[in-house]
Amino acid sequence: MTGQDLFVALDLAGTYAFASSGALAAQERRLDLYGVAAAAYVVACGGGIVRDLCLGGIPPVGLSDWRYLTAAMIAAAVTVVSAPLVKRLAHPVLLFDALGLGFFAVSGAQKALAVSHNAELAVLVGMATAVGGGVIRDVLLNRVPVILKREIYASAALVAAVIVVIGDRLFGWTAWVPWVAIVACSALRLLSLYYHWHLPRIRKPG
Amino acid sequence: MTGQDLFVALDLAGTYAFASSGALAAQERRLDLYGVAAAAYVVACGGGIVRDLCLGGIPPVGLSDWRYLTAAMIAAAVTVVSAPLVKRLAHPVLLFDALGLGFFAVSGAQKALAVSHNAELAVLVGMATAVGGGVIRDVLLNRVPVILKREIYASAALVAAVIVVIGDRLFGWTAWVPWVAIVACSALRLLSLYYHWHLPRIRKPG
Amino acid sequence: MTGQDLFVALDLAGTYAFASSGALAAQERRLDLYGVAAAAYVVACGGGIVRDLCLGGIPPVGLSDWRYLTAAMIAAAVTVVSAPLVKRLAHPVLLFDALGLGFFAVSGAQKALAVSHNAELAVLVGMATAVGGGVIRDVLLNRVPVILKREIYASAALVAAVIVVIGDRLFGWTAWVPWVAIVACSALRLLSLYYHWHLPRIRKPG
Repeated sequence: MTGQDLFVALDLAGTYAFASSGALAAQERRLDLYGVAAAAYVVACGGGIVRDLCLGGIPPVGLSDWRYLTAAMIAAAVTVVSAPLVKRLAHPVLLFDALGLGFFAVSGAQKALAVSHNAELAVLVGMATAVGGGVIRDVLLNRVPVILKREIYASAALVAAVIVVIGDRLFGWTAWVPWVAIVACSALRLLSLYYHWHLPRIRKPG
Repeated sequence: MTGQDLFVALDLAGTYAFASSGALAAQERRLDLYGVAAAAYVVACGGGIVRDLCLGGIPPVGLSDWRYLTAAMIAAAVTVVSAPLVKRLAHPVLLFDALGLGFFAVSGAQKALAVSHNAELAVLVGMATAVGGGVIRDVLLNRVPVILKREIYASAALVAAVIVVIGDRLFGWTAWVPWVAIVACSALRLLSLYYHWHLPRIRKPG
Repeated sequence: MTGQDLFVALDLAGTYAFASSGALAAQERRLDLYGVAAAAYVVACGGGIVRDLCLGGIPPVGLSDWRYLTAAMIAAAVTVVSAPLVKRLAHPVLLFDALGLGFFAVSGAQKALAVSHNAELAVLVGMATAVGGGVIRDVLLNRVPVILKREIYASAALVAAVIVVIGDRLFGWTAWVPWVAIVACSALRLLSLYYHWHLPRIRKPG
């Protein structure tokens, strides 16, 4: 498996995981069939489209590569068909979301490093790829994005992107660095959920 | 009339129709004069700017071609000057909105086909062009976008974009395919309003 | 000091001013440490990223130039550390925000003129750069953007961008035109706050 294959595989896995979370959120808001499909697509591909626009990848693969749309639609269909099952699987959904977060942070950082060896760009694009779809979902559903409130979410994506950048500097491209980053990010996210870790809240001014 | 002329004419007609709907929504929210002009411009040109960014059309025509800004400002001025008249014309506004939906879905899909013969790209960009401005309007005015809730809206844009792509594959560029797509999209939208058609809503999980 | 240096200096000053306003808004919403940093960054760099995407500046300097991120993080840290002080300085915050508005309108218009001598593009990109970060902040925090409601805000940015464009046409690039535009914009904004100037509100239709 080459680096390019690995990159696409990670990206598709993240797409599937995020599309599931988008479809589920849309169903809870009682959107119609189109709304569920649209929410799944936007959550799954929104971050990647932002990433590609910022890196000059025109047209964005989320719009032009059929595999991303297909992965998102399969995830939406599975969610619609097996709603009670998916509900019983609430914990697996959180698991998928945590994995998607890691996959996308790594794929975004790697794609940025492939375009330019700017560390800041790789870290910021990795984070934007990972949290972008979720932010768009929350904006469309008219709520304050969870990443601005919840405990350890974007911070976990930050950790993954930093690991990719440091690994790239120290070891060049190697197959195991992405996995370390994905495992670190997903584990940090899941542990923070389980133990209710959170960043310090700032004292309200005055 | 060449294909390029037709494309621009469709795009300007859609711009006028959508600017009217944006100006009216802003007035209902009691925004000031600037807010009305800004809402008209954003609804009218937002979808096209997203389209141009995704297709690499830099700078976007909505920012650099004076005709789009002018069409949007004329629509805003007409709405402001003749507010009671426009209100009495509530049905014409829905008509313009339905026509704008068709114009923009077709112009977006055609512009994408001119850049690359990727069918998925053309369909997704056509839809994004058609619904983008309305989504931005709803996000700014702080409500859940109608396209995620209302009956047949984005689906009608989808139909128009698919007709353009199929027509392009079967007949190459022809003058009548766009019109078939526009009529189909607008008619579907208006009939769905009149007869209260809607897509099936998903049973809430559990 | 060359034109390029002046441009970067203006841009960094605007970044610092807007990051302060973003960090303060996030603290008032009781976001956590990450949320405060993210809000500061988004308000400070959001408008510039939109500007660079529309002008083909890939990757956007807000993502790739460490000085912008650093300026935003310093502003966030100062706000967090000295919250009571900053609160007592409510008027200075409005002052910084008004200065940031002028800096960004001018830097956006100048960057657009450097890419193309299209006056409309320069005016629209100048305004988008100036108000973009604030609009993104309000959308994320789930409120109707102030620019659509408050008195003289985007209009002041419009004045600055128009001054830059006219100055460029009449005098070519000169060091004093930007300063005239910045002073005019900031003064207009501050005077409108002090005297409660506002644009006429449109009579509600019907």
